[in-house]
Amino acid sequence: MTRPTDADNGPAVTSRRRFLRDGAVIGGAVVAGGLGAGEARAADADNLPPNVPEWMKTPGDATGSQLYGTPSPFEKNVVKNIPKNLKQYLSASGRTPLQDLDGIITPNGLFYERHHGGVPTIDPAQHRLMLHGLVDRPMIFTMDDLRRFPSESRIHFLECSGNPAYTKPFGKTASDLVGLLSCAEWTGVSLKLVLQEAGLQQAAKWVVAEGADAAALTRSVPIEKCLDDAMLVYSQNGERLRPQQGYPLRLLLPGFEGNMNVKWLRRLHVTAEPAYSREETSKYTDLMPDGTAREFTFTMETKSIITRPSGGQRLTAQGFHEISGIAWSGHGKIKRVDVSVDDGKSWQEAQLQEPILTRALTRFRLLWRWDGQPAVIQSRAIDETGYVQPTLAELLAVRGENSFYHNNAIWPWRIASDGEVTNAAA
Amino acid sequence: MTRPTDADNGPAVTSRRRFLRDGAVIGGAVVAGGLGAGEARAADADNLPPNVPEWMKTPGDATGSQLYGTPSPFEKNVVKNIPKNLKQYLSASGRTPLQDLDGIITPNGLFYERHHGGVPTIDPAQHRLMLHGLVDRPMIFTMDDLRRFPSESRIHFLECSGNPAYTKPFGKTASDLVGLLSCAEWTGVSLKLVLQEAGLQQAAKWVVAEGADAAALTRSVPIEKCLDDAMLVYSQNGERLRPQQGYPLRLLLPGFEGNMNVKWLRRLHVTAEPAYSREETSKYTDLMPDGTAREFTFTMETKSIITRPSGGQRLTAQGFHEISGIAWSGHGKIKRVDVSVDDGKSWQEAQLQEPILTRALTRFRLLWRWDGQPAVIQSRAIDETGYVQPTLAELLAVRGENSFYHNNAIWPWRIASDGEVTNAAA
Repeated sequence: MTRPTDADNGPAVTSRRRFLRDGAVIGGAVVAGGLGAGEARAADADNLPPNVPEWMKTPGDATGSQLYGTPSPFEKNVVKNIPKNLKQYLSASGRTPLQDLDGIITPNGLFYERHHGGVPTIDPAQHRLMLHGLVDRPMIFTMDDLRRFPSESRIHFLECSGNPAYTKPFGKTASDLVGLLSCAEWTGVSLKLVLQEAGLQQAAKWVVAEGADAAALTRSVPIEKCLDDAMLVYSQNGERLRPQQGYPLRLLLPGFEGNMNVKWLRRLHVTAEPAYSREETSKYTDLMPDGTAREFTFTMETKSIITRPSGGQRLTAQGFHEISGIAWSGHGKIKRVDVSVDDGKSWQEAQLQEPILTRALTRFRLLWRWDGQPAVIQSRAIDETGYVQPTLAELLAVRGENSFYHNNAIWPWRIASDGEVTNAAA
Repeated sequence: MTRPTDADNGPAVTSRRRFLRDGAVIGGAVVAGGLGAGEARAADADNLPPNVPEWMKTPGDATGSQLYGTPSPFEKNVVKNIPKNLKQYLSASGRTPLQDLDGIITPNGLFYERHHGGVPTIDPAQHRLMLHGLVDRPMIFTMDDLRRFPSESRIHFLECSGNPAYTKPFGKTASDLVGLLSCAEWTGVSLKLVLQEAGLQQAAKWVVAEGADAAALTRSVPIEKCLDDAMLVYSQNGERLRPQQGYPLRLLLPGFEGNMNVKWLRRLHVTAEPAYSREETSKYTDLMPDGTAREFTFTMETKSIITRPSGGQRLTAQGFHEISGIAWSGHGKIKRVDVSVDDGKSWQEAQLQEPILTRALTRFRLLWRWDGQPAVIQSRAIDETGYVQPTLAELLAVRGENSFYHNNAIWPWRIASDGEVTNAAA
């Protein structure tokens, strides 16, 4: 375990002690003096500040006025981040507003979306999954059939492999950069169990998955992944999948690039060779400096980003602020996250929120005292294999200028003396 | 660790092996013979069943057509369960449709609600939290102040203490019985940290929490809980609290009865004695057989219920079915769940889904082969202290007929020979 370079500003207990020692300067106004004259009040029960608010004077909204609840009207700007002039269908996407979220679970209404032929409206009673090819017993499943299989639930992230496009560091906010990323509790059936049920043949090396959207999106999955942690998923954060996430059935390949987690799943074709489909040739393949194609880049690399403070936000005062962000890895668990507040000159170990789950978002936090001077802050994740998230320069040195997918570079934020936070690499 | 009483039908691996050995009878139709004549097809790629569906023939809905997503129209009946002729305000509640959910996370739109004065619409910029009484520095916090404190995220259940009312086992579904129960990932500030910031005085023994609703709901919380795992919460499953769950700020007391987790929190009054407020005298107190009042019954007991199959559902065929349900305990982690399929004569150990978190829902599962005969199925939870969930008869023997709250009895479901599932205790 690496020691923080600045022990006094280290994680967890030490930070909390320092926060408490110095905290009164930021943690709320002291009643009898710290507020402006208009707000200062004696601390007694009959004279609460601000005076009894309007919303206590009459009964509130009726119970059940929303049979399916929605957020507060004061949160109306916390929505999916949709590019202006969005070209529909071929490359359409909507991003999760990561800078507005806490914890690791993405609420279903804000889960990112990325489609190649729009979002089909599928009647689950009519939907079928066909499993055929190199199996002893080709089968057709209804949704009811699949619901009778033993189920399992796991929390995993999902991320688009073009998150973000990497030679052009565009975007103002954390969502602009890496908002094609979300995390949920998924429930479904082990794909291994379903394949065993059908009787997998010796020659089976790939499973070609096809979606029931207008693009019939098709990807080839190595049999090793199918026999490991792959799932046929029908529920997300407790309820059935949302249409944008593949209702009524999707493939989930934990840690693999988003588009392979085929939505609206209607077919699994067990084969000896990959399909070389459109989405694994014209897309989702990178041109390397030596002219070769880097293809079948399945696993999403180890990554992190600070979501607060982040681009588009503003620090309103000097003193203590919590730096908070998310880290994730397609290779397994996050082992450590380091944070720098001095443009990469030194790094401190952040605190990781338990439980730390494999191939799930991990929330990290570091308490920071901002002195009001310009600063550049950034995070780097280390996974359980020991791999360290690279800088963009390190990544470019290996992959060249023609790559597009699988950018897992460190992303720095610049804080100006007025507290404004901007993308330091843009 | 207790051994299952029927080793051949035990949990996990054994069940899966048996499922695979015998499974072809239920797990989807074999393509070349298992289906009805109209559906049977050769298993080739050009002839998928059913024929290419309508929703593949034209582009689907545009990306971002919902800036904040909603469930599929085919799930329109999965909503909060609101009693008919609901008396508003004093005792209004809406229940989570537990029988339709998987995993342990409740989506925010289906989180249960229970209010005493309706749901206020609060502007977070105007909201204040006052902390006063036996502290060295009485303080007033804005939401921005609280957001600058070190944060934490944890997954916990919340449950109403009247879930269900216990001498009258009403209701047809799992939601009717125990739907005043949900589970989410909460983010906020340690209450201990905030109290330390204000300087807790020696005489402080209680914290009286008050909500900013029209009922000014008020509960007294022992100082030990406030200095343990209590939180001031502003986010739920990633996004800000929903209005029905206390937007913009609520108290969270993991494992304590729901109403103590004061919503729309505006005041914490540190005192030497409890307030004996309306909600801890006329309500949330039980009359015992000896005439005494059982009051301050904070902790929700250890409990479980089978959610599938459960009341209102129907088994459509003999053979394998997964029995699935949830267990929880205000005392800590669930250690084991037993399931009986023979009206309590024998019990088998269910499989528990990892991660098993303290004071959170835990999903349990058992694979069961239904022989088409009438059956009574039920579950009993055991927590990490060794406490075993009681039968209703055992509970009544101790608490008498005049109790109302804190019914944690085992709840059985009856399965008829036609597969219909009903409440076996109603």
